[in-house]
Amino acid sequence: MSAKKVIFVVADGMGDRPIPQLNRKTPLEAASTPNLDQLAKDGISGAMNTVDIGVRPGSDTAHLALFGYDPNVYYTGRGPFEAAAVGIEMQEGDVAWRGNMGTVDSDLVIKDRRAGRITDVTPFAEEMDGTIIDGIEFILKPGSGYRLPLVMRGKGLSDQISDVDTHVAGVKVHEPEPLDDSDEAEFTAKVLKKFLERSHEVFKKMKINKKRAEKGEPEANYLLIRGAGFKPSLPDFKAKYHLDAACIAGAGMYKGIARMLGMTVFDIPGATGKGDSDLHAKVEKLKEAYDEYDFFFVHVKGADPLSHDEDYNGKVKFLEKFDKMVGELRQFEDAVIVVTADHSTPCTLGEHSADDVPITIYSAEVRDDDVEYFNERGCAKGRLGHITGMHVMPIVIDLMGLASMFGA
Amino acid sequence: MSAKKVIFVVADGMGDRPIPQLNRKTPLEAASTPNLDQLAKDGISGAMNTVDIGVRPGSDTAHLALFGYDPNVYYTGRGPFEAAAVGIEMQEGDVAWRGNMGTVDSDLVIKDRRAGRITDVTPFAEEMDGTIIDGIEFILKPGSGYRLPLVMRGKGLSDQISDVDTHVAGVKVHEPEPLDDSDEAEFTAKVLKKFLERSHEVFKKMKINKKRAEKGEPEANYLLIRGAGFKPSLPDFKAKYHLDAACIAGAGMYKGIARMLGMTVFDIPGATGKGDSDLHAKVEKLKEAYDEYDFFFVHVKGADPLSHDEDYNGKVKFLEKFDKMVGELRQFEDAVIVVTADHSTPCTLGEHSADDVPITIYSAEVRDDDVEYFNERGCAKGRLGHITGMHVMPIVIDLMGLASMFGA
Repeated sequence: MSAKKVIFVVADGMGDRPIPQLNRKTPLEAASTPNLDQLAKDGISGAMNTVDIGVRPGSDTAHLALFGYDPNVYYTGRGPFEAAAVGIEMQEGDVAWRGNMGTVDSDLVIKDRRAGRITDVTPFAEEMDGTIIDGIEFILKPGSGYRLPLVMRGKGLSDQISDVDTHVAGVKVHEPEPLDDSDEAEFTAKVLKKFLERSHEVFKKMKINKKRAEKGEPEANYLLIRGAGFKPSLPDFKAKYHLDAACIAGAGMYKGIARMLGMTVFDIPGATGKGDSDLHAKVEKLKEAYDEYDFFFVHVKGADPLSHDEDYNGKVKFLEKFDKMVGELRQFEDAVIVVTADHSTPCTLGEHSADDVPITIYSAEVRDDDVEYFNERGCAKGRLGHITGMHVMPIVIDLMGLASMFGA
Repeated sequence: MSAKKVIFVVADGMGDRPIPQLNRKTPLEAASTPNLDQLAKDGISGAMNTVDIGVRPGSDTAHLALFGYDPNVYYTGRGPFEAAAVGIEMQEGDVAWRGNMGTVDSDLVIKDRRAGRITDVTPFAEEMDGTIIDGIEFILKPGSGYRLPLVMRGKGLSDQISDVDTHVAGVKVHEPEPLDDSDEAEFTAKVLKKFLERSHEVFKKMKINKKRAEKGEPEANYLLIRGAGFKPSLPDFKAKYHLDAACIAGAGMYKGIARMLGMTVFDIPGATGKGDSDLHAKVEKLKEAYDEYDFFFVHVKGADPLSHDEDYNGKVKFLEKFDKMVGELRQFEDAVIVVTADHSTPCTLGEHSADDVPITIYSAEVRDDDVEYFNERGCAKGRLGHITGMHVMPIVIDLMGLASMFGA
């Protein structure tokens, strides 16, 4: 009997490289993960590059590929995904930017691209959110830390606008320039320039900046934006796969992507998107919603921030906690269970790398292979071979007996 | 010395999934197949998805890919392949449909899409074959069971015509409608409608239907057609590869595809396309024709119908018989021998699946690997890795020393 449900688990940044201090094991190889290993024994495993071999994926492009949306077709830049991450629901014709609160001097030379890694930009967002200039609305919602994405809403906008953020300190902020000859690009650049100047004037005078100056912290006085993009036209997940899908995640970006695809997004108390996240609470939510949905996207963020912090011991511990969650998932016997990562974040690097990630696909009917250990080295010996993210959903759909035949 | 001949063996539906009753072995793993295993030891093996990972192929698209014809380019729908299967040689401009003899009531509501799974539709084909309406000829040849493909021949036809078969019983037959605004589509739909009405009137009055009614069997009174398609433009196999090719097969579909590619098609007494097929007779035919041709497409159907019947024990036995045939092929020492399947048909499913299939390519010169067993698990460890059907012919041609160089 074909599987009835799908539990699609993405452990963000789980893949790694050999760590000298761990006897050249990866954190996943060093961790004690009996449940992951059992899943690998019972399932079919492989090595996967979510986008392609040698491509260093962002979390956004990686997830698009994992859900079967070719990022080379559907990805319209980071702006819209950052906006989705903070809960802005873009409309057709909106243009979105990634943004940081930064520090400029009186000549508009960038002193700090992240305003001393300011931890809460809510007051700045609130001050300027909803501003209307020349009929265009500016939507600003605070992201995590110094992040402050911007959306422009109104008629006649273009996403062909140059970055304002110079990507390096010590130079003057760039004025937004049209990147093509259209009236829309010229108009968008002109209005955006007015908004950035006005917000700079407002930010400079905010009391919070006086307080920061008193504490010796750099003023947060300029919105450094980049990565303009229109709302991506993503076919609805339900229309594409005929599956009712729900998202079980803590971090904003993943909820945002799920919302873009039309999934139901749960809020789970204790799911923080960090190392302290309550993974058991995620399983409980899954159990509660199990009958109502067909497809569960379970995102587990913890390994990624620990990798960015190059904390390999913390990553080992977190993966052991993750292993317990995977053990709990085995209670759902009629499900295809997929466990993988969106990309590797080697602790030796502190950033995403292009290294492939381990993947196991389990269902009661799957062709199990000889793989005994769920990790980078173990899964690469599996009979899935070397796949890309775009292959995963077709395999899952086939295991559910729902794939349409090509031919006769 | 490079190989001089090719023996390309396709065991239809050979791939499978673990069968609980066979200790989670697949039928190929459970069968005793010393000759296949020896071939795997002497050859190079891999796992193959004929079309692509996660794609559930039909036999037609799978064979196109295996012969190096990209089905995404060359496949024009099921109609032409069904027509080829019953021996209709399509001409440029012909349009073909799959068809079933079905049962409708006096309001043209479909009562049974297969007229009680009628086993011989020859009388119906003979009654209407050759009908000419408005200058268009209607060609009807009986397929197996209730199947009755239709070809329209004449000037100004279109394949942009909606299905007449509703795919479900209990609703009225659809009238054929043009799917675009062209004059050709309008004309084709109009003439086709006349033919379907006329054939319905003729079928209703046939004596055979009176007899069926007396026996309590549903009348076969309507030709339910679907999947309109033009003749695919397939480059001739000989022109493509400079090899004289012959087809050794029992089942109509495979002979049809071979004819489309310009292969010589043998009729082999005892080759039935079923489990009882005389596989030794196929080898004898091969021996007889060996000097005259360069490439032999040997199709063995038996495993597929047994899989559709979910008869895993029968499949095990058939594969042991197939193994003996493969043993006989080793007498042809100067040949590249390819043994593979067009798709998996798991007995647990009774249908084609997207699971990969084992493949071994043998020639005296091939880089043999460490694979010891010809089956799903064994071949997947081979050094061919994970390939698609489109890779096979280029590898074969290279082993013959006939590949042209790309570059200098």
